[in-house]
Amino acid sequence: MSEQRAVILVSGGLDSATVLAMARAEGYACYTLSFDYGQRNRAELQAAERVSASLGDVEHKVVRLNLDSIGGSALTDAAIDVPESLTEGIPVTYVPARNTIFLSIGLGWAEVLGAQDIFIGVNAVDYSGYPDCRPEYIAAFETMSNLATRIGVEGRKTTIHTPLMKLGKGEIIRAGLDLGLDYSLTVSCYQASVEGFACGKCDSCRLRRQGFVDAGVKDPTRYI
Amino acid sequence: MSEQRAVILVSGGLDSATVLAMARAEGYACYTLSFDYGQRNRAELQAAERVSASLGDVEHKVVRLNLDSIGGSALTDAAIDVPESLTEGIPVTYVPARNTIFLSIGLGWAEVLGAQDIFIGVNAVDYSGYPDCRPEYIAAFETMSNLATRIGVEGRKTTIHTPLMKLGKGEIIRAGLDLGLDYSLTVSCYQASVEGFACGKCDSCRLRRQGFVDAGVKDPTRYI
Repeated sequence: MSEQRAVILVSGGLDSATVLAMARAEGYACYTLSFDYGQRNRAELQAAERVSASLGDVEHKVVRLNLDSIGGSALTDAAIDVPESLTEGIPVTYVPARNTIFLSIGLGWAEVLGAQDIFIGVNAVDYSGYPDCRPEYIAAFETMSNLATRIGVEGRKTTIHTPLMKLGKGEIIRAGLDLGLDYSLTVSCYQASVEGFACGKCDSCRLRRQGFVDAGVKDPTRYI
Repeated sequence: MSEQRAVILVSGGLDSATVLAMARAEGYACYTLSFDYGQRNRAELQAAERVSASLGDVEHKVVRLNLDSIGGSALTDAAIDVPESLTEGIPVTYVPARNTIFLSIGLGWAEVLGAQDIFIGVNAVDYSGYPDCRPEYIAAFETMSNLATRIGVEGRKTTIHTPLMKLGKGEIIRAGLDLGLDYSLTVSCYQASVEGFACGKCDSCRLRRQGFVDAGVKDPTRYI
């Protein structure tokens, strides 16, 4: 094959769409992976499909897993409200071990594909309260990956790419726009309507809205 | 709570049943976790339920995830035959990143439960061809875990327990029998019938059968 394969975790949100555009721009053949994990935001998965197709993915796969049976997060547990203001410490929207679970499944698919590159849109600026968004966590996952798989045993290296790690939301948006990304395809809201309209009030909406302000461009988000 | 909680990965096979018996004997309140991941062996999940109940689990959870959509293993891909003889290198029954995926979901549940202990029945003696059964892999997973979760951020430590790591099958069986385990409840065969009858021919059956010979006890397995 002429192009190197990469697995890109795509949620349907703004960040992971930008990561996909970056991976394409770097010349990777992109295999996009989304998760139906019982999240409230069902419009997100449709957005993931739209974003993947519009950015020329080779294949888009949706893995279903019922993380809602484990609970522990406002994003999967209907008994916990999505907050409308930023809080101290780890937010209730944190899903226990979510990035570890998603990266692990991405690692499995990468192994099947013979891909040594996995991209994820984690960000330590806006999500500093999430333990699994920190650079030291990603480095430890990468070390573990290289012991976990056939690729590692064969002496090849798996790389976890986090191109957004140190970018603010405005910088992320500008980078995506430079790559021709249409952010109206993406849905970031934690509690978007079935039609993909954003609440405009949750942490994710606030960060996104401020990002367009910071980038100095019009916000294409459809709010309720 | 008076007892410490632990998450035990239980497949329905001989090894993980022994691990559960060991964790109970150590006094842990055991939360057992099984996966419906599109494996051929459906009898395994029923065995997991039986084993968990008989050993006094606090709660048994089955997480569904369609790993078969990723493929790459004889255990999940109907197009790949289960082999009837041991092979060199990594066997085709290896499921890419399986232990990483299972441990990650176990880590998420442990976080919700406030549990710092996860038990898994990996074994470096019989499964030396599986990269994710090696001690160095488990150590790297543990290091990553402590950066991934709220428990780690709060300065508490997650331990991945692998009490079978260095035991031969005969030693595992003797340890389980000493704890009163009834191995007729377990199903190890890679291609067991719906009723739980074992083929007697696959790698897993061969290892199990030899284990009872080595332990010097009668094999309670129901063969076809």
